[in-house]
Amino acid sequence: MNFFTYFSTKDLEQIHEATLTVLETTGLVFTHEPARDLFAKAGCKIDGKRVFFPRALVEQQIKNAPSRFTLYARNPEKNVVIGGDQIAFMPCYGAPFVHDLENGRRAGTLEDYTNFAKLACHSPHLDITGGMMAEPNDIPVARRNAERLYSSMVHSDKPFMGAGTGEADAKQTIEMASLVFGSREEMADRPPFISILCSLTPLGFDEAMCGGIMAYAKAGMPQLISSLAIAGATAPVTMEGMLVVQNAEILAGITLAQLVREGTPVVFAGSSSAAAMRYGTLSIGAPEMAVNTAATAQMGRFYGLPVRGGGALTDSKTVDSQAAYEAMMTMMTASLSGVNFVLHSAGILEGYMTASYEKFMIDTEICGMCKRVKRGPEITAEKLALEVINNVGPGGEFLTHPHTFKHFKQELYAPLMEERDNYDTWMSKGGLSIEQRASMRYKQILENYEVPEMDGGSRKDLDAYMASIRGN
Amino acid sequence: MNFFTYFSTKDLEQIHEATLTVLETTGLVFTHEPARDLFAKAGCKIDGKRVFFPRALVEQQIKNAPSRFTLYARNPEKNVVIGGDQIAFMPCYGAPFVHDLENGRRAGTLEDYTNFAKLACHSPHLDITGGMMAEPNDIPVARRNAERLYSSMVHSDKPFMGAGTGEADAKQTIEMASLVFGSREEMADRPPFISILCSLTPLGFDEAMCGGIMAYAKAGMPQLISSLAIAGATAPVTMEGMLVVQNAEILAGITLAQLVREGTPVVFAGSSSAAAMRYGTLSIGAPEMAVNTAATAQMGRFYGLPVRGGGALTDSKTVDSQAAYEAMMTMMTASLSGVNFVLHSAGILEGYMTASYEKFMIDTEICGMCKRVKRGPEITAEKLALEVINNVGPGGEFLTHPHTFKHFKQELYAPLMEERDNYDTWMSKGGLSIEQRASMRYKQILENYEVPEMDGGSRKDLDAYMASIRGN
Repeated sequence: MNFFTYFSTKDLEQIHEATLTVLETTGLVFTHEPARDLFAKAGCKIDGKRVFFPRALVEQQIKNAPSRFTLYARNPEKNVVIGGDQIAFMPCYGAPFVHDLENGRRAGTLEDYTNFAKLACHSPHLDITGGMMAEPNDIPVARRNAERLYSSMVHSDKPFMGAGTGEADAKQTIEMASLVFGSREEMADRPPFISILCSLTPLGFDEAMCGGIMAYAKAGMPQLISSLAIAGATAPVTMEGMLVVQNAEILAGITLAQLVREGTPVVFAGSSSAAAMRYGTLSIGAPEMAVNTAATAQMGRFYGLPVRGGGALTDSKTVDSQAAYEAMMTMMTASLSGVNFVLHSAGILEGYMTASYEKFMIDTEICGMCKRVKRGPEITAEKLALEVINNVGPGGEFLTHPHTFKHFKQELYAPLMEERDNYDTWMSKGGLSIEQRASMRYKQILENYEVPEMDGGSRKDLDAYMASIRGN
Repeated sequence: MNFFTYFSTKDLEQIHEATLTVLETTGLVFTHEPARDLFAKAGCKIDGKRVFFPRALVEQQIKNAPSRFTLYARNPEKNVVIGGDQIAFMPCYGAPFVHDLENGRRAGTLEDYTNFAKLACHSPHLDITGGMMAEPNDIPVARRNAERLYSSMVHSDKPFMGAGTGEADAKQTIEMASLVFGSREEMADRPPFISILCSLTPLGFDEAMCGGIMAYAKAGMPQLISSLAIAGATAPVTMEGMLVVQNAEILAGITLAQLVREGTPVVFAGSSSAAAMRYGTLSIGAPEMAVNTAATAQMGRFYGLPVRGGGALTDSKTVDSQAAYEAMMTMMTASLSGVNFVLHSAGILEGYMTASYEKFMIDTEICGMCKRVKRGPEITAEKLALEVINNVGPGGEFLTHPHTFKHFKQELYAPLMEERDNYDTWMSKGGLSIEQRASMRYKQILENYEVPEMDGGSRKDLDAYMASIRGN
């Protein structure tokens, strides 16, 4: 498939030039001293906390980053390639609230987190377990990172997300993962997790994020270097100006990671969107989010880097049509524009504030459908089926033809929860909406969930670590 | 924008070759004798009702069709170009049932039809009024075509759809349109409507459709030559084999139209999808519908013809998340793959069976968002905003910058009904879903609707025509 693109090569070069000008002339603020020291050593001009980047330095660091890498799962069948023509889906991240049909919106708990880890592991369409899928508000803040990691590693055998909350949590993530995935050297060769580190828009990085970037980079751990600019608030209101701000931030973050350790796997990660001007709030369900997703995809490809963008994003407060079409808009845009890594692919409601159980299930269906559309057709003699067409001929039927039996399972997407029955049968089964079917479905999965086996030694080490953390 | 594509040039040539082989070797059944006579005269072999097409004949007729044309509206500001990089949205077509939140599903009436004509005219995102938006079950069958046309022409000043129900209705459509849009010659120069004529899959055309194609072509009226194959039922289960069947049918229909009158404006129209194998029914919300939409777009472009594909399509029986994400999936695919004409862009529920008021409103929002995403960014110095970025600098804000005031209206999509407020404000306003807001919105539009003025002579002629039809 050839992805859809907005820009000509000349356009891309113009955006790149504009970005280098911002990096060189306007500069970025880094409040983290060790980061500034490293930049100074590499030849950046420093003025107070502001860092000005020579063009050649930035261009070299982009080249030092790999164009693709692999996340190694506990179950090797679930390894995930990040880059190339691949797309990887990962559920919601960072929501303080949880929503379900019966109880509405409430504070998230560790049980919610674990439930989402199980649902993510169970879904055939999600590739990565996730991290911070729901905030465990019932756990002391100091213990949350460890509890989340424990839950992710124990309840799912897919790759997972590390902490994106600063240096200490980054180091803890590496330490805990090492109990299951081997030495630091082994993990640098076969990284089992990825983390997200974000800029402080416009044109800055704070202490916590720089600490995280540097700790992970030192260990060779993959990271999403991410910018969330808001057109009309923290960036120019024009998509093009916002792209320059986003670009400058991502490239500055990537430069930092590469200066710590050349070849650190990084993802060019843009999640910028527009302000809802009437309210002064961020709108993540806006079509401008989709525009920026595709623009980011093309920009990252221009740099030869894996790209993050998109998600099942919505501003809706409830699981309704708005939540669904906004989610599909940006998921489809990501899939057709060549994004490689989609954070927030399932569950997000209310502009990152809430993780919904029903929407989680609905979004996994969206993930599956997007992958099917992305796969597309493939021209072979067997699939063109000229002989079959000639044999059946005008007015005939293909339902009972052996060619149909041979291919239908691979050819046709099998929905998880969709309604395709006729009206009367649907009514006789209760006339349920997909929200109601999703509610039944996630409970059924959780009830029957079998935790994937972990080797005894790893589990024992993890449990001992948690016991020490929990103070038991 | 460069549209996304599945096929290489070699792939396209292979599909084209396979199609010509089917047309030449397998042939198509035409039950309409005048059509067979015309094909025979043009050099086709005829065996009973089966017609075999020489390759050169088909290839010549494709070249005879224009690559783009214009539909001329009663209000010239609402003229619509069909072809090139344009996309035109048109609402639901052919639904026997109507659905609204209060009353559920019921038989459609002429009042429903007129309501949809008004809503289509009112929407800034729909380009064409429509036709058969709801079946007027309360009107005798013999009078339905005239009543629909009258309603379309009177209640909206956008281009509209003519009858797709056979020769007599086609002639009536031309006659009635002529009362408003001038002589047959004037209409051939400036066609005010377009009609859809469908094949009988697999590999046939019935009497009614051939009669319609020939009558419209004789008058130079634009038509969608449309195929709806069902993978696994009326076509091979493989997307590629289905595409060959669809392609053969469309090219045969186009050949007929061009043989009647060279240069007849035609649209290469594919709406094929997959069978829901578990039920043996057509699934229009399937991802295979999206795959075929993009494949059709590329195929039509290969022939240099305007393309129809996609729609706000769903198998859901109610206005829920499934209805919304399925609709967005195929609307977004159509927008990003270069489709020019999207039938069923608003209102469809339950696999073409039902037209929903609330979904109509929701889908018009989807239309607007798709157009915004398709428009994308545009690289200019003003939009890259380098000086603005440099002036604001790290940690600054853009909300109060003159650049934001200057551009935000053009840059940011203004939602019609979307919820972007914060949770507490949303709750304090009643915590309404978009379905509930859509319900309020369409009633408000209908209540305040002002029928666009029509010149007195035309209206008098139309009224006189209707009086004669109604037997008053």
